[in-house]
Formats: sequence, C-alpha cells, structure tokens
Amino acid sequence: MDYNVIRCARAILHVTNLEASRRFYVDTLGFIETESDEEHIFLRGLEEHNHHSLLLKKSDKPVVEALGYKVSSEHDLEALALLFEKEGYPTKWIEKGEQHAMGRALRVNDLSGLPLEFFAEMDTVDRLLQRYDLYKGSRMQRIDHFNCAVPDVEAAYDFYKEKLGFACSEYTETSEGSIWAAWLHRKQNVHDVAFMNGKGPRLHHIGFWLPDQLSLIHTCDVLAASGYGESIERGPGRHGLSNAFFLYLRDPDGHRIELYSGDYLTSDPDFEPIRWDINDPMRQTFWGHAAPDKWFTEASSVLHVHTGKEVPIQAAKLKQHKPTFVI
Amino acid sequence: MDYNVIRCARAILHVTNLEASRRFYVDTLGFIETESDEEHIFLRGLEEHNHHSLLLKKSDKPVVEALGYKVSSEHDLEALALLFEKEGYPTKWIEKGEQHAMGRALRVNDLSGLPLEFFAEMDTVDRLLQRYDLYKGSRMQRIDHFNCAVPDVEAAYDFYKEKLGFACSEYTETSEGSIWAAWLHRKQNVHDVAFMNGKGPRLHHIGFWLPDQLSLIHTCDVLAASGYGESIERGPGRHGLSNAFFLYLRDPDGHRIELYSGDYLTSDPDFEPIRWDINDPMRQTFWGHAAPDKWFTEASSVLHVHTGKEVPIQAAKLKQHKPTFVI
Amino acid sequence: MDYNVIRCARAILHVTNLEASRRFYVDTLGFIETESDEEHIFLRGLEEHNHHSLLLKKSDKPVVEALGYKVSSEHDLEALALLFEKEGYPTKWIEKGEQHAMGRALRVNDLSGLPLEFFAEMDTVDRLLQRYDLYKGSRMQRIDHFNCAVPDVEAAYDFYKEKLGFACSEYTETSEGSIWAAWLHRKQNVHDVAFMNGKGPRLHHIGFWLPDQLSLIHTCDVLAASGYGESIERGPGRHGLSNAFFLYLRDPDGHRIELYSGDYLTSDPDFEPIRWDINDPMRQTFWGHAAPDKWFTEASSVLHVHTGKEVPIQAAKLKQHKPTFVI
Amino acid sequence: MDYNVIRCARAILHVTNLEASRRFYVDTLGFIETESDEEHIFLRGLEEHNHHSLLLKKSDKPVVEALGYKVSSEHDLEALALLFEKEGYPTKWIEKGEQHAMGRALRVNDLSGLPLEFFAEMDTVDRLLQRYDLYKGSRMQRIDHFNCAVPDVEAAYDFYKEKLGFACSEYTETSEGSIWAAWLHRKQNVHDVAFMNGKGPRLHHIGFWLPDQLSLIHTCDVLAASGYGESIERGPGRHGLSNAFFLYLRDPDGHRIELYSGDYLTSDPDFEPIRWDINDPMRQTFWGHAAPDKWFTEASSVLHVHTGKEVPIQAAKLKQHKPTFVI
Repeated sequence: MDYNVIRCARAILHVTNLEASRRFYVDTLGFIETESDEEHIFLRGLEEHNHHSLLLKKSDKPVVEALGYKVSSEHDLEALALLFEKEGYPTKWIEKGEQHAMGRALRVNDLSGLPLEFFAEMDTVDRLLQRYDLYKGSRMQRIDHFNCAVPDVEAAYDFYKEKLGFACSEYTETSEGSIWAAWLHRKQNVHDVAFMNGKGPRLHHIGFWLPDQLSLIHTCDVLAASGYGESIERGPGRHGLSNAFFLYLRDPDGHRIELYSGDYLTSDPDFEPIRWDINDPMRQTFWGHAAPDKWFTEASSVLHVHTGKEVPIQAAKLKQHKPTFVI
Repeated sequence: MDYNVIRCARAILHVTNLEASRRFYVDTLGFIETESDEEHIFLRGLEEHNHHSLLLKKSDKPVVEALGYKVSSEHDLEALALLFEKEGYPTKWIEKGEQHAMGRALRVNDLSGLPLEFFAEMDTVDRLLQRYDLYKGSRMQRIDHFNCAVPDVEAAYDFYKEKLGFACSEYTETSEGSIWAAWLHRKQNVHDVAFMNGKGPRLHHIGFWLPDQLSLIHTCDVLAASGYGESIERGPGRHGLSNAFFLYLRDPDGHRIELYSGDYLTSDPDFEPIRWDINDPMRQTFWGHAAPDKWFTEASSVLHVHTGKEVPIQAAKLKQHKPTFVI
Repeated sequence: MDYNVIRCARAILHVTNLEASRRFYVDTLGFIETESDEEHIFLRGLEEHNHHSLLLKKSDKPVVEALGYKVSSEHDLEALALLFEKEGYPTKWIEKGEQHAMGRALRVNDLSGLPLEFFAEMDTVDRLLQRYDLYKGSRMQRIDHFNCAVPDVEAAYDFYKEKLGFACSEYTETSEGSIWAAWLHRKQNVHDVAFMNGKGPRLHHIGFWLPDQLSLIHTCDVLAASGYGESIERGPGRHGLSNAFFLYLRDPDGHRIELYSGDYLTSDPDFEPIRWDINDPMRQTFWGHAAPDKWFTEASSVLHVHTGKEVPIQAAKLKQHKPTFVI
Repeated sequence: MDYNVIRCARAILHVTNLEASRRFYVDTLGFIETESDEEHIFLRGLEEHNHHSLLLKKSDKPVVEALGYKVSSEHDLEALALLFEKEGYPTKWIEKGEQHAMGRALRVNDLSGLPLEFFAEMDTVDRLLQRYDLYKGSRMQRIDHFNCAVPDVEAAYDFYKEKLGFACSEYTETSEGSIWAAWLHRKQNVHDVAFMNGKGPRLHHIGFWLPDQLSLIHTCDVLAASGYGESIERGPGRHGLSNAFFLYLRDPDGHRIELYSGDYLTSDPDFEPIRWDINDPMRQTFWGHAAPDKWFTEASSVLHVHTGKEVPIQAAKLKQHKPTFVI
C-alpha cells in the first residue's frame, strides 16, 4: 500500500436548524466553535489542532454528507483515487478552496455506499488543551470514530483491511461464524470505524473522545439541567467491547453521537483481535444493561457523493438479531 | 422531646447462605467483616467506629429482622419506650449481652409495622478510613439510610416528624396534594429514612455511603468482572430527589442495597423541604432514565418484633402509581 | 445550654479591589455572585439556600471583619449575648435591616479576640445545586469552616466546648501534652472552626466545600490557565488530620481560602476525638509533603467589633514549632 | 527506513532485594506479577498482552540493564543491527531462549551510552483489562515511556529522529536556542522516550500509564497507608509539557518511576512540536509548583551492553540550569 490513512478526521452532518445545533453542541456540550456563517458551524475538540472535526451544514433534511479521513500527503490522495477507480468506485475531487479551511479532497461512496472523504490538508488552529478556563460541558477532546450500519459487514471488513490497511481490534461473531460487527483502526486505539450488521448504509454514530469518566457523568447532569434529558439515549455505561465508558446522545436532528472515554493502545502488530460472541450479554454493556430498541433501529441516512441524493437503504445480509438479554 | 435519635445505624437482614453473602458483600463489594461465626456476619464501612452497620443472620428466609437507630443515651431508650407504649405500640427490650457487641436495645414495630430497634451503645472498633491499603470494591464508607414501602406515607411522615423529631428534606406529592413519598433525617444529610407509598411494610433498600462517583462506576466494573452483572438492578445515575449519585444492587438473597454518593448538608432549621411532583421525570432519575419494573414492585418483608413472624403486607393507601415516563 | 449554634455560616472579608476579587472568586473559581454593589460582593456556593456565605467589602486594607455563625432562633441570640456579657466579653447588636439580607446580628470579640457574629436569619435564595449548567471552576458547594491562629489554643478549646457546645473531632498534641491545635464542630462533619497555636488572633483560612477530588484538580488547571498559578499556595493533597483532600489558595488580597472535599460524619456522641502527635509527618499531609513556610507564618488580621481597629496580635503561648520534616 | 520501532516496551532494572521490590510494585502499586523466580520478577500492567514490561533482576547494585523497544519483525532487528554497526555502535545479539519469555534481542549502547534493546517477539499472556476484580493500588495499565538524562540532547534528538524515525511532540529550548530537552515518540502519544540535558547517560525515570487522575491520588493514599510516604518524590501535579497528570515515586532501590495519565493523540504528521521556554514556570508544573532538588539531580546509572560495567557518567554539554522559580 502506498498510502497512509491516518485517522477518522471529520464528519459533515446536515442539520435543519443551526441555532438549535449550536445550543446543543456549543452552549451545552462545550464543543469549540472555530467559525461559523449562516450556512455552517465548524466545531472542534479541545486538543484538536485542525480547524474542525464536525461540520454542521444547514439543510432541509438531517443526513450525512461525508465521513472524512485524514491521510499523510497529497500523494496518498492520488493513490487512493487509483485504488477506488480500479475497484469500480467512481471518485470525485473537490479542489482546495472549494471547501472552507480544507485542502484538496477525494470523495467516493465505498462498497457499502458510505460517503467517504479523504484529505491531507486542513487549516490548523490553536490547540486549547491547556485553556482549562474554556472547559465546559463535556470537555470534548477530539473526534474518535465513526460507527456505521452496513448490509454486509464481512465485505466491508475485508475491503478496509485489505485495501485500506485497517487493523481489527475486536469483532462480534454469530454462532455460525459470521462477522456480525467489527472494530477497525488506523490510529492506535480501538477504532476509527466500526461496522455493524444492519440496514444500511447508515451512520449509527460519531464517537467523540472525553478525558475521563466524570466528564460523561457531568455531561448528563448538564444536559438534564439544560432541558436535554430526552437527548440522553443510552448510558453512561461500560462497553464490554472496547472497554470504553460510553454515553449516547441524540442531537436536535436525531443524529447520534457517542461520548467515549477509555479503550486502550493498539500499536502492536501481534495484538490478536478480541472475539465476542453475539450472545454474550457483557459485549454491549459490560454491566449487563439493555440498550433501548431505538439504539438498534435508528440511524442517519447518507448522501451519494455524485448525485447528492440519499443512498437507498438495503436490508442486512445477516438476519436481524438483537441479543436475547435485551428483551 | 427528651430523646435524641442520632441516625440510622444498623440493619439486621436474614440471609440463606452466609458464604454467598460473604462473597458478595466482603470479597466483591469490599465491606469490612468485623467478625463472624457460623450464624452471623458483622459488616461495617471504612469510616465506621462502631462494630457493624449490617448484620447478616443465617436463616431459611430472606427477611428483615430490624432497622436500627442509634440514640444518645440509655435515658433516651427509656423515654422512647414510654412514647411507643403510650402511642399503643408494644415494645420489647433486649438486654445488653443478649446481642453480640451491643448494649441494651429497644425494639418495636412502628405504625407501619416496620421493626425498629433503638440502642445507645455498640462496641467500638478501629476506624479504617485512612487504611487505604484495605480499600477495595465499592470502598463503602458507612450506612446512610433505610428506604421503606409503607401503606400510609402521611401517617408515617407525621409520626416520625412529630413524635420522633425527624425533619423532612424532600418529598413527592401527588396531583391531589397527598404525600407520595418523604425523605426524613435526623443526621444532617438528606435522610436516615424514606417512606414510599406502596404495599408494606417492606424494606425497599438500605443505602450505603460511598466516597465519590467513580467508586460507583468501579463497583459496576468489579461486579461484572466477578459474575454479578445481574445483581446490578438500576443505575448508576443521578437522583433528582436528593441529588445523589446512585446504584441499586440486589444481594444474593434479593435484598436491595443502594450505593449512594452526594446529597447535601441539611443542618439548617430554615431549610424548606423540596417538593417534587410525582409526574416530574427528573425526580426519580435526573437524567430521565426509567427504572426497571421490579425496582418498583419488589422489596423485602419484615419480621414482627414480638412474634418473629413476617408482618402481613397491606395494600397502599394511595393508588399504585408509576410515573408515565416509566412505561 | 439554651442556644444552638448550627454552623459556620459566613465570613466578611475586606478587600482592596472588588474587580480583582470578582475575577478571582466569580470568573475563575465559579463562586455564585448573589448580588453586588459598588462596595460589596455577596457570594455563595451551589448548594447554599442562604443569600451568601462570603461577603467581600471594599476597604483600604485586607482584614477580617467578622466570622459568622448561624443559630437556631432569635432567642438563641439573646441567650448568647447573656453568656458573653457574663463572661466579660462586651457584645454589640446590629439590628435587622442594617446589614443587607440579614436579620439581627450579635457581634463580639471572643476570648482570643476573634470577631464573631451570630445570626438566626438571612434571606433565602434559589439553591443552584442542580443547575449543572452553571457549574464552573471549582464548583464550590458551601462554606465549611474557619481556621484561626490564636495565642492560647487550650483556652479557646475550653470556651468553645464548654460555653458554646462545640465537640472536638481531632486535635494535635505536643510532646508535653498540650493541645497545639483543635478541630471543633457543631454541624456533623470535622469542623466549623479550628484553632492552631500561633500569633493571633488571625484568620488562617476559610474552608469551602467542593463536591469531589477532581474539582480541586480542575481548579488548579483553571487557575493556572487564567494566570493565577501563584495563587496556588499548597496542595492539592490529603490531610492526615480530617482526611480531607485540600487545596490552599491566596486571593488577590492575600486572604487564604481552602478548597476542601472529604472528611466524615461526626454525628455520634461516642466518637472519640482523634489525637495526632505534632511530630507525625502524616498529620499535615498524609502523603508526607511539606507545606511552604508562608503557609505557617502568614494569616489575615481581624477587626475589633467595637472599635473597628485591628486587634493587636499577640505571641503564641506555646513555643513556635514547625514539624522537623518541613525543614 | 526499513524498520519500524513500535514503542517503548520493557525495562530491565537491577534491584537489591526482590522481596522489598515485590512489596512495593506488586502488593502496594498493584503491578501484575506474571512470573518470578529467585532471581527475577516479571511485571506487567492490566492492559498488556505481552509477558512483562518491567523485569526486576536481583543484583548487588541498583542499575539499569536495558531499555527495550518492540519492533515489527525479525527483519527489523537485522536492519537495526546494520544501522548501528554502520554508525559505529557495536551490537550484541541475545538469541531466543536465552532470555525468559523473549524472542531474539538486539542490544546496543546508543550514542549517549544508553543500553538499548530491540526485540520483535515476547510471549503473550492474558490481558487483564476487564478483570476489574484484580484492580488494586495504582491500577497500572501499561508502560509508557523512558526519560533519560544525557550529556548532549541535540545529538540524541538528531539520531532518534533521523536514524530511528522518532517524531518530536514537545521540546524545551534555552534562551540561546539549544534544545534542552525533547519528547520523542513512535507510538501515537507524547513520548516513548524523552531526553533531558544532564549528567549521563542515566535513566531518570520509567513512565507507566494510569487510567485516570483519581488513580494517582489513590496511589498516594495507599502508599502513605502502607508506610511508603517517603517514596512519594513529586506530585501529583499537572505537567505543562505533555499536559499529563503525574506522580513521581522512588522504588526501594531509588529507581524513579512516574505514574502518568493524560497527554494526547500524536498521530498527525502535520502536528507541530510544541516549544517551551526553559524559564517558563508552567513547563515543569503547569500549576507552578517546584520540584524537589533531588528530582533534578538523582537518576539511575546504566550498564554497558558488552562489558556489563556501569557506563561512565559525563558532564552535560549545556550548563546545568535549574529554573529560577525552583529556588
């Protein structure tokens, strides 16, 4: 492979009301607003040195425009374009200057239909990691991962491993030996992207990194005190899978975000992916708690890179399966 | 009033398997085992200077023998006996020496039928508050409160306030203006005892004090790692009522305990009790989470002080009511 | 005793620059500003239901005007006035309305010369305990205690125990068996007031209660990020004495405040005061850290209740003694 | 570069009393003892899947035998051997089987004289990350970094960057523009190794990763309660440099270890190293606290790979400089 995908780097979400989004993300959760105009809000975390990791665009419908990955260099973009074209996925270039604060970007819908974006360059800004006087709400540090529902997890798993160089940290297997879900990483923690068997392509959630467990608890308190109790969908709790401490929220448009703290270092090539049985009740929540139904069924639709239309949703290849302990 | 009830001080629970209880309370939750024999385990928290705050007695059936309150002096016991007798509640004395590590004790079933015990003297032992090398599991510090389901909360509320000198910190009111539940204290935090409208008399739970929120989270992790995932019934979460961070567990016999951290100082006579509407979703869980049905329906039966038989359970005076958001 | 001192309730500090004080206490530490005018700032903590617990008055010199205790009723004030007069300490009344937000107050310099104030009534305000959206900086919850340097600790100890009804939770003893320092409480935690042998009368610090240990650490981070690194005088660390987690700060006028979290319940009359040897290195800092010299030598002067002049400072009765491990 | 150094992976320390070391590292700090015999104790952290990250060898003198780095493959070892030989540093091979639980290892004293070891293979063991029932003391997760005093930091910096492929995250510069200290990483956090100007080569400390800030505080409490108060050398505090929360301990032989939690992700090639002025008081301790003198002056000697003798200590190239705020 002559390209190096560094990490999950930014998401572009369409939202219907920028003011409502600002109240949620900035005023309540404490995301840093780098910049904004009448059509966009550019958000980042406290340790991020790039311009933004979450771009909210005003639109009629809450969908996902792109899931962005940072690569090492412009050359990597060219090489990735070649790969995707060769594999039969038509690419699209967005030249530097066409997107605010961004260098040249490559977009393509992957084999699952997910709208990917690759870029090597984004404006840099002041890191605020030690501006503790600005810490508020969730104290969000940085974007961590994307979690996507796709109809064929094994196909996605193979492509990301073999073609894009991702490594698997953990996975869930059905009793028949099929991969039900997989956690894949380029940076050295549990994941940059996870795929779960389900109707898709859809974005299940974007994961953001928090500095510690108490920040998640305080986030719940702040949300409740701010009238956002109903935005708390699941958690806080401990994932068996990844070992992270988690909290799932729904933003004013229904996009799901995960606040996430913990996991572990995955630097070693001899690290064996951890297998979880789909019926293991500790997999989803280490403590055995059930997730609400809508956590399993609801997710955000994604746009086609070329048409700008929603990508049609297909049935999952593996039979819908909700662990029995959830009943 | 010429007696001074100091605080909720010990509970006596009947359990069916002392070894199973020890594995849960001592090995996993880290309660300190002061002493034990073939019929008893005496447990305490890290800051407690009295011999025990939880006495487990081997028995055929998991019931509650007594809810113990500490008073200032022997004289207080005499005065309380007079009060109860005068109010029509027959009392029973257990002389010093009859109960291990205890001075003289007065027992009586209160107006709700709850088996109370009052005592002024219990053996003292080393406080282990600064023996951090012994901290494990939940790091439990001390007993905090009893929570009881009773058929007539207002009657209990009146008796405890007017006859026993308790103060009310918070209460839940129905839309008709009846007291649905009340939090009453002698020591200077939210409660020593709470009464909730329900079939009773039953002990809903015993609350134990933990030093901080992370101790509750770690307790969940330890329980899950030790095979006690199913013992976690509810939480961790924030109570709107009391503002405490909570976790509800079921012990091997089904007795419910609450691990509890937070609340506030209630020293002031001009502190106005906080009123909660029964339909306020933030009352039970500030973050809006639902409690499982069994948290509302299951509780421990209590014994009659004189007969040693279970006190018959009566229907609640107010119509059973579960907040609609729980459905 | 026919009066009931409830607790340490408010301090009145003279400060030279209200704007500088506001930037420190309100903007940085997150104290709640109940009200202010050109001469005063009234501050409180998040759980307090009374109007203020710290009153800053603009003045030429940073001194202490009064250390205020709340009592149960107006009657208690009368009884206390009788006591002090009888003991030879001339009292002074400040009628309701003369002090903003306050009922009638009794002032007197005690046997050490400390300017005490007693009051039963202060305006009530909204408690902000569950307004987590307003939490910032230190998340200060409530005033906790005063710590004073006095020339004769044993005399103060005796007066507060025998005349004012305080109980001793912990004390430091010299090798000759004299009380070097004592922690005395009315409310049910370690102290409302502590006396340390030293040149006095002086206020060593006011202690404020924080909800947990991480709030102290975050306070350090926020102070440093806000340019107040030099305000951090000592800590964070663990006191052996009291077991509390502590942080000592100097405000812009040099008044010392302690941010404090932990300690324990002191409700029981059979609780034996804990004795510390003055040479025990774990007494001051359980971890063995040394405190800086100025922590031992600097403190705030106090005003005379009747003259409004500074109370002359007298030498300590016991020889100045700094534990050898500090050298 | 046709080799890939993955990360700092194990240290070999000589200690004079294995029982004393076990009491410190295992019984008190909670390091996991994978195995031991009469001459060795093999220790690891809770998330580590390799056999050990700290090897204690019984010896007459407390010195450092080797600082071990993991590489991707056997091939990398060959390539690294070629590099070092070519650069004039004589290498030494230790064949698989000669060291317990280890594959083939390459040893060499680097340009500063530090005894490096590279290996691709170590036995794997059960990760205990979710065995929360085994968590105790510090809850140490994994080895994080080495910090070394070397006479010529710039020479070391150049070699590690240009020859070994390390990236610089942060550095300290003198007013003359010389690099006083540098933090270099291969894995994606602040460092695998840091070099500080000083008499050397010496190992200043080994850094171990803890899950959160409260684990450091609890470690202090446990150490104090276990009689190790004097082992606490510095902290807990916040480093300006790296932003990590730190605690420095001295083991029974005087080897220094750092318990460390925090820092940030360093995955991006466009991350600009952060420059600190040597006179910035927030560099060492963000809160402005001084470190004790011995933290600056004491460190562990290292052995020569070929002779087994101590490597002679040379004067630092830059004039010894202790920030003025430390005085």
